[in-house]
Amino acid sequence: MRENTTRSAVLPVAPTRGRLRPLGLDEVRITGGFWARRRHINASATLGHCRDWMERVGWIGNFGAAAEGRIHRDRRGREFTDADVYKLLEAMAWQAGHGAAGSLDAEIAALTAVIAPAQEPDGYLNTAFGRPGQQPRYSDLEWGHELYCYGYLIQAGVAQTRARGEGELAKIARRAADHVCAGFGPGGIEGVCGHPQIETALVELARLTGEQRYLDQAALFVDRRGHGTLADSEFGRAYYQDDLPVRRATVLRGHAVRALYLAAGAVDVAVETGDDALLAAVVRQWEATVARRTYLTGGMGSHHRDESFGDDFVLPPDRAYAETCAGVASVMLSWRLLLATGEPRFADLAERTLFNVVATSPSEDGRAFFYANTLHRRRLGTPPRADAESPRAESSLRAPWFAVSCCPTNVARTLAQLPAYLATADDHGVQLHQYADAEIATCLAGGHRVALRIRTDYPYGGNVAVRIDRSPDRPWTLSLRVPAWTAGATAWLADPDGARRAVAPGTAEVTRTFRPGDDIRLELPVAPLWISADPRIDAVRGTAAVQRGPLVYCAESVDLPGGHEVDAIRVDPSAEPVDGPGGNGGTVVLAGELATHAEERDAAWPYQPLARPPAATADRTGIVLVPYHSWANRGPSTMRVWLPTAEPDRPAEPDHFAVPGRPADSDNTATGR
Amino acid sequence: MRENTTRSAVLPVAPTRGRLRPLGLDEVRITGGFWARRRHINASATLGHCRDWMERVGWIGNFGAAAEGRIHRDRRGREFTDADVYKLLEAMAWQAGHGAAGSLDAEIAALTAVIAPAQEPDGYLNTAFGRPGQQPRYSDLEWGHELYCYGYLIQAGVAQTRARGEGELAKIARRAADHVCAGFGPGGIEGVCGHPQIETALVELARLTGEQRYLDQAALFVDRRGHGTLADSEFGRAYYQDDLPVRRATVLRGHAVRALYLAAGAVDVAVETGDDALLAAVVRQWEATVARRTYLTGGMGSHHRDESFGDDFVLPPDRAYAETCAGVASVMLSWRLLLATGEPRFADLAERTLFNVVATSPSEDGRAFFYANTLHRRRLGTPPRADAESPRAESSLRAPWFAVSCCPTNVARTLAQLPAYLATADDHGVQLHQYADAEIATCLAGGHRVALRIRTDYPYGGNVAVRIDRSPDRPWTLSLRVPAWTAGATAWLADPDGARRAVAPGTAEVTRTFRPGDDIRLELPVAPLWISADPRIDAVRGTAAVQRGPLVYCAESVDLPGGHEVDAIRVDPSAEPVDGPGGNGGTVVLAGELATHAEERDAAWPYQPLARPPAATADRTGIVLVPYHSWANRGPSTMRVWLPTAEPDRPAEPDHFAVPGRPADSDNTATGR
Repeated sequence: MRENTTRSAVLPVAPTRGRLRPLGLDEVRITGGFWARRRHINASATLGHCRDWMERVGWIGNFGAAAEGRIHRDRRGREFTDADVYKLLEAMAWQAGHGAAGSLDAEIAALTAVIAPAQEPDGYLNTAFGRPGQQPRYSDLEWGHELYCYGYLIQAGVAQTRARGEGELAKIARRAADHVCAGFGPGGIEGVCGHPQIETALVELARLTGEQRYLDQAALFVDRRGHGTLADSEFGRAYYQDDLPVRRATVLRGHAVRALYLAAGAVDVAVETGDDALLAAVVRQWEATVARRTYLTGGMGSHHRDESFGDDFVLPPDRAYAETCAGVASVMLSWRLLLATGEPRFADLAERTLFNVVATSPSEDGRAFFYANTLHRRRLGTPPRADAESPRAESSLRAPWFAVSCCPTNVARTLAQLPAYLATADDHGVQLHQYADAEIATCLAGGHRVALRIRTDYPYGGNVAVRIDRSPDRPWTLSLRVPAWTAGATAWLADPDGARRAVAPGTAEVTRTFRPGDDIRLELPVAPLWISADPRIDAVRGTAAVQRGPLVYCAESVDLPGGHEVDAIRVDPSAEPVDGPGGNGGTVVLAGELATHAEERDAAWPYQPLARPPAATADRTGIVLVPYHSWANRGPSTMRVWLPTAEPDRPAEPDHFAVPGRPADSDNTATGR
Repeated sequence: MRENTTRSAVLPVAPTRGRLRPLGLDEVRITGGFWARRRHINASATLGHCRDWMERVGWIGNFGAAAEGRIHRDRRGREFTDADVYKLLEAMAWQAGHGAAGSLDAEIAALTAVIAPAQEPDGYLNTAFGRPGQQPRYSDLEWGHELYCYGYLIQAGVAQTRARGEGELAKIARRAADHVCAGFGPGGIEGVCGHPQIETALVELARLTGEQRYLDQAALFVDRRGHGTLADSEFGRAYYQDDLPVRRATVLRGHAVRALYLAAGAVDVAVETGDDALLAAVVRQWEATVARRTYLTGGMGSHHRDESFGDDFVLPPDRAYAETCAGVASVMLSWRLLLATGEPRFADLAERTLFNVVATSPSEDGRAFFYANTLHRRRLGTPPRADAESPRAESSLRAPWFAVSCCPTNVARTLAQLPAYLATADDHGVQLHQYADAEIATCLAGGHRVALRIRTDYPYGGNVAVRIDRSPDRPWTLSLRVPAWTAGATAWLADPDGARRAVAPGTAEVTRTFRPGDDIRLELPVAPLWISADPRIDAVRGTAAVQRGPLVYCAESVDLPGGHEVDAIRVDPSAEPVDGPGGNGGTVVLAGELATHAEERDAAWPYQPLARPPAATADRTGIVLVPYHSWANRGPSTMRVWLPTAEPDRPAEPDHFAVPGRPADSDNTATGR
């Protein structure tokens, strides 16, 4: 691996080595489009929403209660709520580092002033343990989340230092980290936290401060796990990855967020210590997990019971848990693996997960969230309450807050740091991994400054235009990721001369002495495509889904005529899906039919001797799909991604379906790929 | 409804009214065959196994610790373990009432002597609450299970009284019941237990004693539930059926065992109070639950998270929870509905559940149990420990004991009372509902004595022979259930003259003046049949299962060649399944193929643009199935009930598969239906 000698200050992840060098929030700006809108809502609505809710439910107040000695009586919320306050602070810090810092700096200072008095003289800081009337410190490593909370505190401190310069929050975080190293280092408690998270944080603190002991402690936590130091539980030790050491595991397992955070921490340790075997072990686990335990959306974790990965190919769409935090954690892991290896497959998964999990969680107004991201919603459920915490996976609508509310602040900090995930540099040039309207300015090796500007209609369109604003007078390479989902169609790259060549999934490169004003254009084919699943994914046998560019689509009952629910849909994959009303991916239309209400009548017993299906009686119709990330934004709805295909012995009639909102004979009807 | 004027003493369920009058353990004996073997193992192995484990894990010792004032320090096990001791006592009492009572009476007396000192002067009895250092009595109705434990205590007391005459256990139970009526009656605590169970028990005590107040209290508990007196929980109030009053609900929902116990209690109340509206409400719920929320095996409850029913048609085979206790509870409910209405559909479901859930749970030696009864097991998992309690759903093998061990004692008490579920009487004659080698002797209206003897090869064969041993010299009617699974084939009934007529699913009757020595014969067609599921059961789309008589079959990896797992199987439903080696339903053989190991290689990403499947390369072979209830008796194995059907565009070649263990040209190869 190469050393990262040139470095930005404002980086969420700042490895000292790796194939690619990340660009920081001071080098990349998102200027418009899909993510700019979401980042604007995040800054203007979500941050305040989270702060207000945490005031209201008492999670911020817990710190004061601890400082005032009344916490044993007055504590509110689950044992890990401190972490959400820290995650909000981290989000605020990155946001402040990216502009409009004024009021955010003051908010950070105010919140920090609430937290500071709760820290004990030896650095211990947790409102759920250790004071009179509470359980003793570190008496419940399995479920207590004390080290997990420190992890987010340390990340908030790192964010504040990098984004705004060291402040009080960073000092609190340093004291806590020192306390952890003293207490859990060699000769200390031989334990790990039931919820991995501190590992990435300690490595980042080592990167920030250059202090080896933080890295050593992170490495110790990674190596200590998997030897059964945590008590067995109802869910087994695999739940907290204490069943098998990281370097011996072959696939991610157990609680999905824990597994992904641990893997991210292991990559951080591997990169900083040059431990290639550890890095290879995590890559292997990532490969197996992506091949066998990941939803079409990039969602991970299929079990509600323990929020865990299922066995290989157990990916039920209707009980998909696919927790938002697991999506965030998957992006964290993929980003670290991309920086370490330079391989575009990691950016492919990050893209899929960002557009179909992370972007799905928040509502359009940024004040309600999905905690779980199911791929099939069968009934409307009870609407979430506007004035109370919701259960985490019980409604077809996003909820303003949860009793366990890890997801909203995790989305907030991810959106706040998102520009840092777009591009990297190396000795040869600049690499674009995610496409958004953006401006990039950085230095190449030798101090040569480059500046570029990206314009795109992504993710609904596949046109990416890169304009060079500044370039040294010597050749360098601009690399553009060609997503794996373009396989089978042709992507095109046009260099500044206008020379146009087909490019394959992976990386497309232009090497030359660029001039300001040069244009590079990438055209990615985004026609909607039928997708089928590996036959070993039993739960979606006999169905097909639609993807268009990086976006997964879904059917929602609000788009169906006649009061039908989505389970009435049967589709005909012999007819290509086409763009629907509004064009450009706002909707997609399929050929299909709706079961008649008579067919939906119950039999007394739903299992019968096999017989030929009756002749179809349903009318063929056009079925409208919308991007999955936008579902449930028009009120309660049933929804499904994987759509049953019609009985094979029914003749396919691809040309005889109506596109709603469009004359049946319109030219556009046949514009499928 | 008619009054039940003639009554046996030894009845688990003894309604005073209803369409049918149950026959007790003093009227029906099982003399051989499938259930006799299981009842023998239950009596000779399971009862002692349960007692030994409850000694070992301290659940019996809890009573002594309570009496001695050290329970706050020494209590072992979850909060509801008292109930399992009571369930064991109930099983012992029914078993004692059915023969070989000697040592069982002594064991019952010894256990009762351990329990008695723990009862407080006012009748309160629970080892988990109420003493110094413990939570106060009734301070946690949601999760505390105090009334639930009383329910099992009362049922044990009723069983002792009916089977052996009133003893000390029955007196303890009466005192507890009186305590409940005093504490939870009008003017008392306005609450219900988080886990229904006491309702059936109080009604049965009322039936035993004739005391109205027990019935009133049961009716009060039924009516009080559904009004949100229990606190909301992570699982919602539907978890304990406190979301909606019983008489307004339309389908069973929430925790499956709770829902079914409550429904059984509601039927008991409805029957005794003549509340036809309440009875009709439960029948409606049963219908909807059977049509939309029940597995092919009769298993109920699809979610692991909260052991609950899923939404309509959410019946994933690989995450089927289908708790054994829910099977027991479903049989309890169906039996009560059968007695109330006389409709054979309730006996149909009881049969399915007895053979495919209740019989599946215990191992062949009666010393290990399935807690959950999945329909698809993908991996072997960790074998259960012989020396420690197991998690409840984590292995492909039965476990000797569980941390939550409700199922073993529930199976034990069900098998002990099983003869009482075989037959009933009414004013016109005798009805046979379940088929087993058995002897029945009872009195018809007017005191006319009848005796009959049943011989059958059930469930593997469909021949039932009834011989009249004693009969009054006047006409009466013998009714025989013709199971719904015979639909499509022909069942035959031969009367004592040998006159043979086709009979349809439902009830077949012979009315005449029977003579001793008369033979009545029922022939049920039991060729193996392909079964398909309602297309709304998304999780099994594109698969088929096999049923033969009342038995569901499954494939197990131990029967597959070449180290294949069951997920390699693809079957061809155009070829009929046939009886396999051993004949008579021991195995069934299908035409199918096994995916090649090459096909099982992972793709980097398991979702691809839809394409025609490649030409089949797998060899056609015979796939051996075994009865589902017998799976996992030959060591660790993967297993599945629903088998994917081969791609439709592969030509079916029904005549070209080999039956393992048999020459390919054997005559038997073509003995499918």
